[in-house]
Amino acid sequence: MTTEHDDGDARLTEQVVASFASTPDARLRTLMQSLVRHIHAFVRETEPTEAEWMSAIRFLTETGKMCDDVVRQEFILLSDTLGVSMLVDAINHRFATGATDTTVFGPFYIKGMPERAYGENMAFTPGTPVIVRGQVRTTDGTPIVNAVLDVWQTAENGMYSGQDTGQPHGNLRGRYRTDAEGRYAITTILPVSYPIPTDGPVGRMLNATGRHPWRPAHLHFMIEAPGHRTLVTHLFDKDDKYLESDAVFGVKPSLLVAYRERPAGDELARRFNLDGPYREANYDFVLDRS
Amino acid sequence: MTTEHDDGDARLTEQVVASFASTPDARLRTLMQSLVRHIHAFVRETEPTEAEWMSAIRFLTETGKMCDDVVRQEFILLSDTLGVSMLVDAINHRFATGATDTTVFGPFYIKGMPERAYGENMAFTPGTPVIVRGQVRTTDGTPIVNAVLDVWQTAENGMYSGQDTGQPHGNLRGRYRTDAEGRYAITTILPVSYPIPTDGPVGRMLNATGRHPWRPAHLHFMIEAPGHRTLVTHLFDKDDKYLESDAVFGVKPSLLVAYRERPAGDELARRFNLDGPYREANYDFVLDRS
Ligand SMILES: [Fe+2]
Ligand SMILES: [Fe+2]
Repeated sequence: MTTEHDDGDARLTEQVVASFASTPDARLRTLMQSLVRHIHAFVRETEPTEAEWMSAIRFLTETGKMCDDVVRQEFILLSDTLGVSMLVDAINHRFATGATDTTVFGPFYIKGMPERAYGENMAFTPGTPVIVRGQVRTTDGTPIVNAVLDVWQTAENGMYSGQDTGQPHGNLRGRYRTDAEGRYAITTILPVSYPIPTDGPVGRMLNATGRHPWRPAHLHFMIEAPGHRTLVTHLFDKDDKYLESDAVFGVKPSLLVAYRERPAGDELARRFNLDGPYREANYDFVLDRS
Repeated sequence: MTTEHDDGDARLTEQVVASFASTPDARLRTLMQSLVRHIHAFVRETEPTEAEWMSAIRFLTETGKMCDDVVRQEFILLSDTLGVSMLVDAINHRFATGATDTTVFGPFYIKGMPERAYGENMAFTPGTPVIVRGQVRTTDGTPIVNAVLDVWQTAENGMYSGQDTGQPHGNLRGRYRTDAEGRYAITTILPVSYPIPTDGPVGRMLNATGRHPWRPAHLHFMIEAPGHRTLVTHLFDKDDKYLESDAVFGVKPSLLVAYRERPAGDELARRFNLDGPYREANYDFVLDRS
């Protein structure tokens, strides 16, 4: 790849970098100049043909056009499937404070979902009944009262409400609060593994590269409490077969949870109105002070 | 930037690179793995906050949504303004064969524009009359008969037909052919410098970074002839004030042309029906054999 023309290519790169020298905001200048150097390095290394470059332009255009204002954000899917979202996540949570590990936000969050009572059932579609319970604490062990747990998961068909017009509003979504002892309880159904959407450019990319689109079963959490750093994470089913090959690289060992089998009609079942045999998962979250 | 966590970041990158290991097409595998390494390197170097990364996602989404099926291709503008298009161009035309230099294609080409006779006027909007003439030859000097020169430029308002609904179909666009001696002649108006579109994400990027959106005045050419490599290039007005700061880095010294002043009614003016004082430019193109 070393030719007499590399000097000319390098001069072009420096000319483009220099064009950003007058950026008023120093941070934006740093970002743009680094971006130019890294994109140019990629192009010099791979030497795309003009047809390949036009394919990239078309891919990016279609990725933008695939996005809607609800829950389809194809560029987040692209960032997720290239591991960039998890890298940004890692960079922004580098300090071993004892707080719960974070993972990808994903594109399927919807703001303003219903407030739900302690232990309320958020599932309006069928599945294995589950109760997920635990405590939210600060890093020194103090329970956090009135923390808000914004929770979302797919239905058994692998789709989130919002993606799937067949689901009622707020299905498998809701905002729970911790009680006076910092405890939360969520009645729902057992999460299933699901494929990220494959009907767009990202799905075509996965298919062309021999990658599968599956994510291990998980429950999404965004947990907010005054004076604390917001926690965005998942709980993964420890028995899922895709834990080692999550399409978005989001699994961390500390986020695995067991859904233990429980018999129909026991005390917990009666307390939370769970029908038939069910599962129970326990997980305590720890938030950093902000 | 070196922390105990760099190892974890590097492991993530290698995990993502490994996920592409089974890509059936070797070239696609190379491209994806290199892309992952370079994007991850950019992220590790600049350590974007989550808010900065979401801004990038929004920027890319809006760039995709700005594209239409006619002449607005915001990702080409982005590639152009980051100097990537010129880098791809340089990589694909590295051999000093004696052929005319290439430059960016740009986003404003329209296929299937009217065929025009030798010397026909392609301007239906006002401007300084110009005749552009020359010969198309192969690298050994042989004139190329019946080469097609697909030509496009902006009107005096700085807009291309297709961008600007006020212009008649085919205004300042057309396909000319060389005659039996390989000569071409185009009657048009003097090109003006113009800003690339600034009403989209790329315009906001230029504005935020203190860059201007102007391109030096130019005439676009795509020249095709059987047995020859298609030539995509511009002719730039050698007196333009933006030659040193083209927003898309497209200027090459070999592509400058003089528009010499000519008096009204001289022989050339009578031959090509030019009204009043006009300008004349001469340029010979050289095509590689394919
Ligand atoms: Fe999810
Ligand atoms: Fe142009």
